[in-house]
Amino acid sequence: MDSKEKESWIKLEGRGITAAGGFKASGVVAGLKKGKKDIALIYSEKEAAAAGVFTSNLVQAAPVYLCREHLENPVRAVVINSGNANACTGEQGRLDAREMSLKAAEALSLDAGSVMVSSTGVIGVPLPMDKIRPGIDAAAAALGKGAQADTDAAEAIMTTDTVVKQTAYRGRTSRGDFHLAGIAKGSGMICPNMATMLAFLVTDVKIERALLQELFSEACDKSFNAITVDGDTSTNDTALIMANGAAGDIEIVPGSEDYFIFRQMLNEICRELALMIVEDGEGLTKLITLKIKGSPDEAGGRVMARSILNSPLVKTAFYGEDANWGRIIAALGYAGVAFNPELVDIYIGPYQVAANGGAVPFSEVEMKKILQNRYVTVVIDLKNGPSEVTAWGTDMSHEYININSDYRS
Amino acid sequence: MDSKEKESWIKLEGRGITAAGGFKASGVVAGLKKGKKDIALIYSEKEAAAAGVFTSNLVQAAPVYLCREHLENPVRAVVINSGNANACTGEQGRLDAREMSLKAAEALSLDAGSVMVSSTGVIGVPLPMDKIRPGIDAAAAALGKGAQADTDAAEAIMTTDTVVKQTAYRGRTSRGDFHLAGIAKGSGMICPNMATMLAFLVTDVKIERALLQELFSEACDKSFNAITVDGDTSTNDTALIMANGAAGDIEIVPGSEDYFIFRQMLNEICRELALMIVEDGEGLTKLITLKIKGSPDEAGGRVMARSILNSPLVKTAFYGEDANWGRIIAALGYAGVAFNPELVDIYIGPYQVAANGGAVPFSEVEMKKILQNRYVTVVIDLKNGPSEVTAWGTDMSHEYININSDYRS
Repeated sequence: MDSKEKESWIKLEGRGITAAGGFKASGVVAGLKKGKKDIALIYSEKEAAAAGVFTSNLVQAAPVYLCREHLENPVRAVVINSGNANACTGEQGRLDAREMSLKAAEALSLDAGSVMVSSTGVIGVPLPMDKIRPGIDAAAAALGKGAQADTDAAEAIMTTDTVVKQTAYRGRTSRGDFHLAGIAKGSGMICPNMATMLAFLVTDVKIERALLQELFSEACDKSFNAITVDGDTSTNDTALIMANGAAGDIEIVPGSEDYFIFRQMLNEICRELALMIVEDGEGLTKLITLKIKGSPDEAGGRVMARSILNSPLVKTAFYGEDANWGRIIAALGYAGVAFNPELVDIYIGPYQVAANGGAVPFSEVEMKKILQNRYVTVVIDLKNGPSEVTAWGTDMSHEYININSDYRS
Repeated sequence: MDSKEKESWIKLEGRGITAAGGFKASGVVAGLKKGKKDIALIYSEKEAAAAGVFTSNLVQAAPVYLCREHLENPVRAVVINSGNANACTGEQGRLDAREMSLKAAEALSLDAGSVMVSSTGVIGVPLPMDKIRPGIDAAAAALGKGAQADTDAAEAIMTTDTVVKQTAYRGRTSRGDFHLAGIAKGSGMICPNMATMLAFLVTDVKIERALLQELFSEACDKSFNAITVDGDTSTNDTALIMANGAAGDIEIVPGSEDYFIFRQMLNEICRELALMIVEDGEGLTKLITLKIKGSPDEAGGRVMARSILNSPLVKTAFYGEDANWGRIIAALGYAGVAFNPELVDIYIGPYQVAANGGAVPFSEVEMKKILQNRYVTVVIDLKNGPSEVTAWGTDMSHEYININSDYRS
């Protein structure tokens, strides 16, 4: 971004979802997770336009269906529970998701159709509605603004996450300030399209629903859909955004200066939340940034990036701090996208390790220093087109095995 | 198989590749792997028809190209080295592969076009031809028959394998006996289409090349292409079969009784070798047999099986002896094949854990007993068609991470 754009917004340190005008939030203990907050509520004082991006898994949880439906309406709230995914729960699951929206609507005096619902946690177990009902009442009563409300909501959506994931930005335009804020959760079962990840964003600009969806889809493609921890795409992945217009007369329309700033900020906030998720990847010791340059189109580049970042052999090589480019090019080769192996250049950190598909000598000693860092960048140049994509992944460690063989999630 | 087929063949315990008439073999130490056998030679006294199935990876090693080419000819030998894959080695790699065939042809007084070549090991490093040349001479001089020759050849193709993989069968027909024998290697980077696996089969029947290819492709689909250890498809995967007609007037033609027996035996021997590979899967503590029933077609069933058996979350759940069917149905859902989640039944061992996509109560105590076994069977019924496929995979353990973070392969 150029300096003009950069000056157009600031990050509000320590703040989260209620930094945006006209939004309140809460997070309460309802008893789904032992002693931890497990129901979050995000509430808009005004009707908001909403947009969403959902899991591409054919098996989709009941709340995902409900969200898609309610997204069409002017929305006022989203209620989220952690500890139970309400997935593979059949007709009862659909009834329970609907009851969650009804219950929240009742507590907040809203139309049920204006409340979205999201769930994350164990699959195949019916929701404990006897805990959820009073939990929603408590969350409605606890709604507030400020740093505590921000953190309460962010904590209540966590599952195996080890850190709270929230951020907030203030944008500056000639017509005044506006905000974009969000919370996210996820640390395992993370894979493009999408992850067991939830992200809830809010903004106080005014924007048409269709345009919001277009910009949000674009931002998600470059962020939540460009990260992978273990290649598993969950049944519940959901990213939602609500825009309530509380910032006054700042309306985002295509081509305006505000549009340009808003779009950049939206890409940036999604990228920041996505990287928080990867950073918290289960058992991670390295965060790998992978750039694939020179592909004919972005879609192909993304498929190749995913193939490499999901390869257990690539991931364990990075864990072992081994510059094993042979495993990288092999994973590129089985991605299912056409390219010429004999044009491929590969760089790990500052060092070229392959040129035109063959080995380039490098210092194992210098390379070891690069691979001992927590952050490793890999660049692959296919020399076969104009596109460039960036994706993020993790290594695979003993701790990953510990976490996933011990926990029924 | 029915009892008639079963009686039509016997397994020759302790025997391998030279159990088939007219074949000799050897395995020698050429210095590519420290102190271990690393060049194998399989030689046919008569011209043989050959068929092959190769890696689907876009990045293919030089010997794979050479094999495809020489397969068209009447063949007499295959020379194999372990310790170096001759992959990503560019023009020099192609020249080296060709020189291997020339060198073996010279040592055995054959046409170079009748010698196939195969390599396995590290990627991106030029072949040490100064070691390979005398190694091929030594292998030619060492050719022999019997149990020692069998084992020498089987050992020389191993990389991270922990056990020798060989088998031999004798078939009985009204016109006399014939044989089918094979060796294989592979234990990591194993995935359908194909694995870093090599398999070399020989038979002394007479059969047209086109028919041999048809039957061999079918057998590979149900065996080597139905196993997965880590989802990584290598640059070098090769399965070859040679048929030299040394058994006399037993010619396999479609529709005959011999044809039926040969086809069954071929499927069986490929399945046995494939299971030896999975059994030796890196860090394996469980071998998972997965049946997918009720899919509209086999191709879709295979894609679904692969998605489940490659899922790190499914694999670590089995390592943790956790009957986590939610992870199984989630992996089914992102396979990219259409099905109705609300029809899916899942069984683990003898117990049903999901019916019509929802939970079925089961005894955690009884299930734990099942999951403590080394062999676990999972059956998924999609109730949406006539096809049934079987695939095999492994769990993912701490030891898998150890092996793959410590070894540049």
